[in-house]
Amino acid sequence: MIRPTILLTLLLLAQMSFSQTANTSIADTIIALEKAALEKWNQGDPSGYLNLSADDVTYFDPSLELRLDGLDSLKKYYEPVKGLVSVTRYEMINPKVAATRSMAVLTFNLHSYTADSVSKWNCTEVYRLELNGQWKIVHTHWSLLSMP
Amino acid sequence: MIRPTILLTLLLLAQMSFSQTANTSIADTIIALEKAALEKWNQGDPSGYLNLSADDVTYFDPSLELRLDGLDSLKKYYEPVKGLVSVTRYEMINPKVAATRSMAVLTFNLHSYTADSVSKWNCTEVYRLELNGQWKIVHTHWSLLSMP
Repeated sequence: MIRPTILLTLLLLAQMSFSQTANTSIADTIIALEKAALEKWNQGDPSGYLNLSADDVTYFDPSLELRLDGLDSLKKYYEPVKGLVSVTRYEMINPKVAATRSMAVLTFNLHSYTADSVSKWNCTEVYRLELNGQWKIVHTHWSLLSMP
Repeated sequence: MIRPTILLTLLLLAQMSFSQTANTSIADTIIALEKAALEKWNQGDPSGYLNLSADDVTYFDPSLELRLDGLDSLKKYYEPVKGLVSVTRYEMINPKVAATRSMAVLTFNLHSYTADSVSKWNCTEVYRLELNGQWKIVHTHWSLLSMP
């Protein structure tokens, strides 16, 4: 039997070690996942984001009157968008990840260029480390800048 | 010396136990923190949100060209807003928390009523459990609905 104090110390040491070494790696992993999904999206293919989202994902964008809940709802929402998005170039500006062992939030500004315009977005993606070792999106928040 | 497999099992059991019992409590705690800060904000007082935010908080709202980083920047940004907000009534619609042991994301729709108008917001707040046992906001994303 391990005394609770020993277990607590081990947990604390594990947490400290994690904080010092793992955050950079988590950030790199998550930014790579996001970019891969975004680049598919930019070609009119929402499957990257759908495959990356958890069953209990929640979702905000400026067109929805209320938050959208659940992967099935997101699939239905994205269905009519397939093939419509055509972004020729994007800038993911200053992506930043705040991470703990099993949850992380990625934020960035996004400039999406089409043939004749640019859209400026704020983006928040919350990822959770699932039991199978994969990071999945549990929350997405897209919003458009409304500068004067 | 505890064998790594035993430690791993203990960690896994602790995680499973946490998932089954703690999420409701975390959700209640975080929604209460958010409501207290929001109710101060609605009276023109940003101190609730500032006291609740971590030093490394990141922040989006529709008026900012780029993400705002850090508590000091947020304090400067909120300074001119003091006393200007006067929300007479609010509805926090369907607040939902997705939590792990040390990070949680709260999302809700918000209707804020002033004397003669209503503003409709999407809101994301990411909280992190700090070493002192307090939950702090590490990311805020406010956006306005832009319905047709």
